[in-house]
Amino acid sequence: MPLSSPPSPHPDAPPGHLVIIGGGEDRSQDMRVLRRFVELTHAASPKVVVLTAASREQDKVAEVYQHAFGLLGAKPMVFAMHNRQDAADPQVIEHLLQADGVFMTGGDQRKLLSIIGGTRTSAAMHRIYRERGACIAGTSAGASAMSEHMLAEGWVNPHPQKGAVDLAAGLGFLPRAIVDQHFSERQRLGRLLTVVAQNPYLLGVGIDEDTALVIERGLGLEVVGDGAVTLVDGREMQSDFLELYDRDLIELHNVRLHLLPDGARHGMQEGAAPDSSPMPQRLREAVAILCSGEYPA
Amino acid sequence: MPLSSPPSPHPDAPPGHLVIIGGGEDRSQDMRVLRRFVELTHAASPKVVVLTAASREQDKVAEVYQHAFGLLGAKPMVFAMHNRQDAADPQVIEHLLQADGVFMTGGDQRKLLSIIGGTRTSAAMHRIYRERGACIAGTSAGASAMSEHMLAEGWVNPHPQKGAVDLAAGLGFLPRAIVDQHFSERQRLGRLLTVVAQNPYLLGVGIDEDTALVIERGLGLEVVGDGAVTLVDGREMQSDFLELYDRDLIELHNVRLHLLPDGARHGMQEGAAPDSSPMPQRLREAVAILCSGEYPA
Repeated sequence: MPLSSPPSPHPDAPPGHLVIIGGGEDRSQDMRVLRRFVELTHAASPKVVVLTAASREQDKVAEVYQHAFGLLGAKPMVFAMHNRQDAADPQVIEHLLQADGVFMTGGDQRKLLSIIGGTRTSAAMHRIYRERGACIAGTSAGASAMSEHMLAEGWVNPHPQKGAVDLAAGLGFLPRAIVDQHFSERQRLGRLLTVVAQNPYLLGVGIDEDTALVIERGLGLEVVGDGAVTLVDGREMQSDFLELYDRDLIELHNVRLHLLPDGARHGMQEGAAPDSSPMPQRLREAVAILCSGEYPA
Repeated sequence: MPLSSPPSPHPDAPPGHLVIIGGGEDRSQDMRVLRRFVELTHAASPKVVVLTAASREQDKVAEVYQHAFGLLGAKPMVFAMHNRQDAADPQVIEHLLQADGVFMTGGDQRKLLSIIGGTRTSAAMHRIYRERGACIAGTSAGASAMSEHMLAEGWVNPHPQKGAVDLAAGLGFLPRAIVDQHFSERQRLGRLLTVVAQNPYLLGVGIDEDTALVIERGLGLEVVGDGAVTLVDGREMQSDFLELYDRDLIELHNVRLHLLPDGARHGMQEGAAPDSSPMPQRLREAVAILCSGEYPA
């Protein structure tokens, strides 16, 4: 069945944004994180599509976000999806192509990807993000799903441990990063370091609850919320990963860490920090990896 | 009152060791960490002086370690200390000067330092460590007390937060490091980063429970136990520390992290890792800071 065309790409379209939320964002009080998402749709009364596929209780979750986005002046439309046919439903795609923002709820990122991965839903999200400057958000499982290589499941260990994390294919909005959420609250530095130890070309991104990493496509990033965003850069790292047995703790040297709390803002072209000291080269590179999806040349 | 002289410094005396334990070490089953301490006294039936001054229940703690060290073939002598006079007691000093090992229990490091800091007890410990190759151990509060700049108290925040940590004067066995304990178990990376943000010339050392960082004076280090040792190097770090108000979260760039699990061993002169890749320069420097107490030239 043919679809109506989406609004054609506007030459002055604003850059798309990603709002990657560590879960547990406030949905009834100050709603700082959700409010920022709504602002970044750049519409007065934005059409927001809510995808609940990650959740096991889609009706319940739908109600929460319907209410929250209503309070924030958006027009939410919630689509429950139970299988890949649902994710190819032309009516849904039609709404997605007209949306100013898309919000993926929490739940299980494997469930989310098994339903929307590689479908027209996913393709429509990419299209409006790139062509129309739409804002794509995800919280918890919806945040993990943003990256190309997705942290699908991990054992609880405060330290990196061989074999303690399973990856899967994600939605691909962040080609060279891997996202973990509920980061400080669930002590997940260890599992993020596990991923980086095995995949030093992926930038580890740990996002706390009620906190968002906001990516402005091709331009820069900011942090909004109560917690912080932890960036783990393993490009210079050495580890004994290859010599270990499954479940052994991994020895790591030279992991580079950046800690970005609420209010942190960095542009890809930024030359100097607020105190006029130059922005460290490695942080500049991390920003570039996140905002352009590519390693700096 | 004059003291009898200690055994004179032996030209072939082994290098002294520090055994810095993150608390919660096993005291009745495999006792790996305590066993390593006893081994490193280099005596067949070592005289071990146990100092319980950090604890509020010195009798109870005394019993536990008396039993444990007895099982391990050592001859423990426990000295309770309630004030600085106790820490200057010539009989205690006599025993300390003859000891093969000294073990400081957990409790409150401020209490420990207020009783033994700058006393003849402290001086005797330094003397046998330097001159006779004695092994000096501390667990929990006793571990924090080892450093010159001591982490005295800290608020619980998973992220670095201005003003969230109080320092005090420690015993000075580690002049350029700061030790935190129960590290992963109590999520203390944030408070260690807080110290490093304000004191980038101190190497942060986070030690997990039932885990010890063992320092062989002037030579190298090893890690023993169930957890890991986290080294936090802030020398290249940038932070907005100076611009913040009290309790603000701190933004940090370029923190360098080394993670050393059980079995990690690194010598100051080490040229190559087991896989023949060169030991990273920054790790080499961290080892030097810990083992020599000085920054590398």
